[in-house]
Amino acid sequence: MRINAHWQAPSRTLLGPGPSNVPPPVLAAMALPTIGHLDPVFLELMDETMDLLRFVFRTENTLTFPVSGTGSAGMECAFVNLVEPGDSVVICVHGVFGERMCDVASRCGAEVTRVDAAWGKAIDPDDLRTTVAAAAPKIVAIVHAETSTGVLQPMEEISAIAHEAGALLLMDCVTSLGGVDVRLDDWGVDIAYSGTQKCLSCPPGLAPISFSVDAEAAMDARQCKVASWYLDVSMIRNYWGQERAYHHTAPINAIYGLREALRLVAEEGLEARQARHSRQSRALQAGIEAMGLGMFVAPEYRLPSLNTVRIPEGADDATTRAYLLRRYGLEIGGGLGPVKGQVWRVGLMGASCTEENVLFFLLALEQALKAQGVKVGSGVAAAQRSWDRETE
Amino acid sequence: MRINAHWQAPSRTLLGPGPSNVPPPVLAAMALPTIGHLDPVFLELMDETMDLLRFVFRTENTLTFPVSGTGSAGMECAFVNLVEPGDSVVICVHGVFGERMCDVASRCGAEVTRVDAAWGKAIDPDDLRTTVAAAAPKIVAIVHAETSTGVLQPMEEISAIAHEAGALLLMDCVTSLGGVDVRLDDWGVDIAYSGTQKCLSCPPGLAPISFSVDAEAAMDARQCKVASWYLDVSMIRNYWGQERAYHHTAPINAIYGLREALRLVAEEGLEARQARHSRQSRALQAGIEAMGLGMFVAPEYRLPSLNTVRIPEGADDATTRAYLLRRYGLEIGGGLGPVKGQVWRVGLMGASCTEENVLFFLLALEQALKAQGVKVGSGVAAAQRSWDRETE
Repeated sequence: MRINAHWQAPSRTLLGPGPSNVPPPVLAAMALPTIGHLDPVFLELMDETMDLLRFVFRTENTLTFPVSGTGSAGMECAFVNLVEPGDSVVICVHGVFGERMCDVASRCGAEVTRVDAAWGKAIDPDDLRTTVAAAAPKIVAIVHAETSTGVLQPMEEISAIAHEAGALLLMDCVTSLGGVDVRLDDWGVDIAYSGTQKCLSCPPGLAPISFSVDAEAAMDARQCKVASWYLDVSMIRNYWGQERAYHHTAPINAIYGLREALRLVAEEGLEARQARHSRQSRALQAGIEAMGLGMFVAPEYRLPSLNTVRIPEGADDATTRAYLLRRYGLEIGGGLGPVKGQVWRVGLMGASCTEENVLFFLLALEQALKAQGVKVGSGVAAAQRSWDRETE
Repeated sequence: MRINAHWQAPSRTLLGPGPSNVPPPVLAAMALPTIGHLDPVFLELMDETMDLLRFVFRTENTLTFPVSGTGSAGMECAFVNLVEPGDSVVICVHGVFGERMCDVASRCGAEVTRVDAAWGKAIDPDDLRTTVAAAAPKIVAIVHAETSTGVLQPMEEISAIAHEAGALLLMDCVTSLGGVDVRLDDWGVDIAYSGTQKCLSCPPGLAPISFSVDAEAAMDARQCKVASWYLDVSMIRNYWGQERAYHHTAPINAIYGLREALRLVAEEGLEARQARHSRQSRALQAGIEAMGLGMFVAPEYRLPSLNTVRIPEGADDATTRAYLLRRYGLEIGGGLGPVKGQVWRVGLMGASCTEENVLFFLLALEQALKAQGVKVGSGVAAAQRSWDRETE
């Protein structure tokens, strides 16, 4: 077995659906010496991490902490703690992650009723209203930022419908937290989870999660044990809370990294960060359209952190992405499910969301398409005009 | 909210039940730039990681990979994939982690039958034989190295009993892998999981796991879906296998760290590493006994990587540990469950398992006890004689 003792990661510009590029201070924090999970110094760091998570989630929920797994573990933690076998759950499906919710909730024993929207569209509140009236759900679940389609779901009306029906609102904000406006308390979100490797620009491995007082009450009222020992919040909260009771060994260095990533978010400010994501996404869209390509999602529902671009005629999906990666070290994502081969997914998340990267992407894509004989214009001037307009 | 932008981890000598001290090259690997989870360069790294895991597990099992969670997620992954509701499972309980297995397996719907041994003792094969004959289990589960008691369980006879009864053998080797002899194929272990923060000296966050061909067949024969989406090996194996199908975003940087930690194990060699763990543990035991203190476990069952020391009369558990941490930056563990307040758990794991640390611990403990007015001798000369004997 020959294992290279001097392996170095290649240089990559990460403009895919996540992970995004991780800033050097976050990487440096990941490499600080490991200390014990019950060390008083680490317990302080946990408190700071929870405070910072409340800040980015815009919530006062006490029960706000990072799950020891990736974003999908966050999804599972949300459902497995709230759902008991036979519970009615309404799930809004407008992409892969809504589909995943149905699978996860079903495995928890939920009676799942779906509300579907076409890929690339948002959920129609009227459809949800009708379904909720019939299903009388305990939980309404929805993806705020669909990473598979690039749709940003407006939340206020969804929330009103869920709460009027007496349901808890569960929201996936994996691709919005830290890059797009997310307001748990203003929106009345009862359970929200995210990932670290998107707009927070931290390596993957943790899933920030938050539970409202109502969600805590629903968990306390459970009749049967949570099916997952590892994700059982009734025990985990005694480690993150004041009891500090050992449950499982926390992923120490990942939490070092998350704390630093969140600190950088706080340093930039949420509004400034959201404005940056919007500004760069608008420039990218302007460039794409100037090249003669089209966006997949209607303007009013476009997600700044994940931009879905229609693959033009004559271009091959895999060839283009391989060209970008090999020639430029530039990663973008392919489509999933029904839009595989039809769209590219271009992430502008956290530290990856810069003017430099937008320009680099537009130029690199132009070259990749021309190499395949696809005639396109240049997007650079249009992107430049977009930035100029915003700074006037 | 005031968050220190220049936080540094305190200097700690980690001689508790894990995490152990992480070598600088592993920390450096954790800080390499994050790349995509489908990047061809990362896929190669995954293959190397799997090869290295097979090497340390001493197995040829194809299905050998790190679960994206801590050691307890490994335990849950093992049970949730093998157990279907109503399955008979015999679980050997001789400490906290056997107890935890019962809880985890029950949540998966197993009909659990226990075989108990007193804390500090190994499981008696005759007890297992009797229980297995009555319970006709699908799985026999056992902890190889009980982190809560410091007992190393002999495996050969346990394995024979399980296989004669047609059961699969499931083994927890969280605190043995990489420090103590572990042989999946020779011992006929069908499912084994571990953690990274013990004898592998990697930060916590991943759980190496391995499934035999028979375990794979049992999973393929399942009638119902695995209750956990996140830990469903029927999907995860398509990412770690040749299909490379996206399931969840792998914890990239944690895998960088694990690969480097495993590379260091391979560089040292398994035999040399095991000999080192035995040698330092013997010296520590000699020192402890020379001080006039006692070990909790009988000599033939002592686990080199986790040494349980009886707390002497007149010494306070918490006071002693706080003294060691504050005065010397030295972490050891307290007892759990029925031995809380009766024993200390002194880990000698991976990079923490050095002659220097044994001496440091013996001297520091002596001071901590004297500060409480407890009369003890010095353990240093006895430890020194132990090392001298071995190098003669």
